[in-house]
Amino acid sequence: MSVLSEVLASNAAYAEDFGDKGELALPPARGFAILTCMDARLDPAKYAGLAEGDAHVIRNAGGRASDDAIRSLVISYKLLGTKEWFVIHHSNCGMEFFTDDVIRGLLASSLETAALGDDGFYDVGTGPGAREGDYIDWLTITDQADSVTEDVRRIKAHPLVPAGIGVYGYIYDVTTGRLVEVPAATEAGRAG
Amino acid sequence: MSVLSEVLASNAAYAEDFGDKGELALPPARGFAILTCMDARLDPAKYAGLAEGDAHVIRNAGGRASDDAIRSLVISYKLLGTKEWFVIHHSNCGMEFFTDDVIRGLLASSLETAALGDDGFYDVGTGPGAREGDYIDWLTITDQADSVTEDVRRIKAHPLVPAGIGVYGYIYDVTTGRLVEVPAATEAGRAG
Repeated sequence: MSVLSEVLASNAAYAEDFGDKGELALPPARGFAILTCMDARLDPAKYAGLAEGDAHVIRNAGGRASDDAIRSLVISYKLLGTKEWFVIHHSNCGMEFFTDDVIRGLLASSLETAALGDDGFYDVGTGPGAREGDYIDWLTITDQADSVTEDVRRIKAHPLVPAGIGVYGYIYDVTTGRLVEVPAATEAGRAG
Repeated sequence: MSVLSEVLASNAAYAEDFGDKGELALPPARGFAILTCMDARLDPAKYAGLAEGDAHVIRNAGGRASDDAIRSLVISYKLLGTKEWFVIHHSNCGMEFFTDDVIRGLLASSLETAALGDDGFYDVGTGPGAREGDYIDWLTITDQADSVTEDVRRIKAHPLVPAGIGVYGYIYDVTTGRLVEVPAATEAGRAG
């Protein structure tokens, strides 16, 4: 079965058993938001105990506090009333395994998927590539605790974020499923 | 119990019953990605039938093909091998209920949450506000079928996206849990 058929079949089963979820209100019932990575191994609803209707979930490569994540967070509190936010990066994140220079070079040489070799280097591939990757900040990560702390700081310092919002910084351990606190982020994220 | 304590308690229970999920590989096992809205009522793992490890999930306000979503999608295929992408907006989305001018005005007058009155207008609130909202494109939505189609088109036309990637456009109906196809997006999203 194709991916599309599989997704639609799963969706039909979900809708069949939808219960009273059609009556949920638009604003998150539990008043918080989670910013986390797109990584396939992470299921924030499961790892943080969310039912449908509970909380906003924002996800991108790395779980970074990008301009677009800030856009989403501001809408989350300003129009939909969230008051606490989690920034959750994770161990073994793909964003640790390359730099801006690496991905720009790979995209310039080929648009096809670059396999990661046993030697820890990506296949360069053969064209056609494109140089547009040079204009993107890929928001790669060197150290997870640092990236969580920087992102919490960026959010707290943003002129559109009121001081009263508490921001919590955690790292999700993909080998255990546990959330591990980042103390420097906790310090930076305190509600004022 | 506070939100933080609740999340940590739920996480401890999840980790307790983690099974062999610690051995999942980094690249998505089913080779696809979903771009959808941060809305609390949406659980993409549930509505599309994803287990941990299956697929990348990217979420922002509206599920829009923002520059940051494009960054994430390019990493998703270029380094982690996904070949099919879903763009899934939804009915009753908060992004339909305001315009750039409205949210810029609200943020300029106050940073606190603006309640939506019975008259369909947001409370203006009292200061301090900030004008930084003027520099953000809020990516609001007028019509869901149009926004899905535009976003699929933008992704397909992006110079870093190879023609071979198929992009599917759907609207999730929050009253039924069903994914409804957007035919114009299907047309625009075909793999070349």
